[in-house]
Amino acid sequence: MSAPLLNKFVVVGIGLIGGSLAKGLKQRGACVEAIGIARKTETCAEAVNYGIVDRAYTSLQEIANELGAGDVIFIAVPTLSVNSVFEEIKEFISPEVTITDGASVKGSVQLAAEAVFGAVPPQLVLGHPIAGSEKSGVTAANPNLYEHHRVILTPFATTDGTHVELVTRMWQAVGAEVLSMSVEEHDEVLGATSHLPHVIAYSLVDTLARDINNPNIFRYAAGGFRDFTRIASSDPVMWHDIMRANKLAILKSMDLFIDNLSRLRSGIEQGDSDYLLDVFSRAKEARDEFTLMLARRQAAPKED
Amino acid sequence: MSAPLLNKFVVVGIGLIGGSLAKGLKQRGACVEAIGIARKTETCAEAVNYGIVDRAYTSLQEIANELGAGDVIFIAVPTLSVNSVFEEIKEFISPEVTITDGASVKGSVQLAAEAVFGAVPPQLVLGHPIAGSEKSGVTAANPNLYEHHRVILTPFATTDGTHVELVTRMWQAVGAEVLSMSVEEHDEVLGATSHLPHVIAYSLVDTLARDINNPNIFRYAAGGFRDFTRIASSDPVMWHDIMRANKLAILKSMDLFIDNLSRLRSGIEQGDSDYLLDVFSRAKEARDEFTLMLARRQAAPKED
Repeated sequence: MSAPLLNKFVVVGIGLIGGSLAKGLKQRGACVEAIGIARKTETCAEAVNYGIVDRAYTSLQEIANELGAGDVIFIAVPTLSVNSVFEEIKEFISPEVTITDGASVKGSVQLAAEAVFGAVPPQLVLGHPIAGSEKSGVTAANPNLYEHHRVILTPFATTDGTHVELVTRMWQAVGAEVLSMSVEEHDEVLGATSHLPHVIAYSLVDTLARDINNPNIFRYAAGGFRDFTRIASSDPVMWHDIMRANKLAILKSMDLFIDNLSRLRSGIEQGDSDYLLDVFSRAKEARDEFTLMLARRQAAPKED
Repeated sequence: MSAPLLNKFVVVGIGLIGGSLAKGLKQRGACVEAIGIARKTETCAEAVNYGIVDRAYTSLQEIANELGAGDVIFIAVPTLSVNSVFEEIKEFISPEVTITDGASVKGSVQLAAEAVFGAVPPQLVLGHPIAGSEKSGVTAANPNLYEHHRVILTPFATTDGTHVELVTRMWQAVGAEVLSMSVEEHDEVLGATSHLPHVIAYSLVDTLARDINNPNIFRYAAGGFRDFTRIASSDPVMWHDIMRANKLAILKSMDLFIDNLSRLRSGIEQGDSDYLLDVFSRAKEARDEFTLMLARRQAAPKED
């Protein structure tokens, strides 16, 4: 057997995203040891009991002296908490350690890094696994979460290629495909394809729960409504952070959506059959194509 | 074995909704014979080949003389085509035959019946099975589609109780729960829980496909987006009809939603954490409760 890809894998924040990567790497023998960092001692104990990490601590400082080249720190805390982890890293961690993160917004992490370190350090590779679930917490960890999923890295010209390479191979080890793009493109694309749908789902459920004057409204909803609103069951704190961190891109895509919806509203009001059939047919075609693309990707995961 | 519940079951329009009921009744021995009516001879041939109906014709007129008390005609054509079926019924069908429909909007069917017959005839029981799929057509017919699903009937004071009873027992025979409410409440509730989500899903996919200037936008979307937009793959003609038929209720719920979304937009723009956490937490709570309710219903389907 060849040597494991990573020496120590340290996950800061042992929830769905971090716990799934730790468990996935461990199960595939891709790290010598997995170490968890969580604020609460109960989370640390749970993570060890569930076999997600080999040992766990409440502070990064406690293992700082053990870490060097070939070790990876994965920051998997809510977007707006990343900067406090950077403060700890600045104080305690060797510049040879590879550091990466999984936050859903990259511009705000870049700003936090610049604020703490002066500039984004060469050892820090910003990244985002496009995977998730409406479930959250340490018990939701799933070692196969990243199989056939994409991970977007947003390296800078100043990022050290050795660290980018190690992070890339780490994600590939758990079955993900790794892509690269700029911070700006990442935040715009995710603003439209992920953050906007979450805003809409939360707002729709809130409209029905609060604005419509019918206490039985949910009683008559069916399975289609359940699927459509699944993402409204996502963690409110995580999504609050994303709304603040990616504000401009989200507002931009919300405005495009509200414009489109208002045109559709006029089409419905005026009984404009051509317009309605046009929008519905075009949307069906785009969505059917998207589904085919996802199916092809799962059938041949290595194809780009 | 007891005698079948129905004598002849005639389905006009052999798509997902009509075909699934025909096949479900046949498989459960709940009708002596299932007969299909479709515009195209190919659909008729397919429906017989797939075992959905025993025989099929392109016009209701061809079997009009065979039908009497104990027979049921189920109208399962797109909402705005119901009135042409009423014209045929008026000309050829005995007043003893039970007639019902499955259109997603009930106010427009009521108006069509009043226009054709002068008043809604006592033999006509308006109904709507709250079940469906983004798939459509005769090949999508599923004999178990209605199990654990709800069917809403909207009888009038002038509707004959014998016919309401037969339609109720027909739906129960394929595993559905039957509820009763007014035409107005039905159209308002469905406008909010089904028609509004479809409008939103179509509009979101159209925004991404057309308004956002990034040809790769769908490449980076993930599984959450697929679930959220599943209903945008629904049949455009069917949904065009629904938008026209339930216009006022849909506009009303769209306006409530656009108001709610605009408030959320302001909250995001102003970085109002309290407001965002409030909306997201309330929505998550309502959606989690709704999911629990659906799960309980499937575990104990006979409970109301």
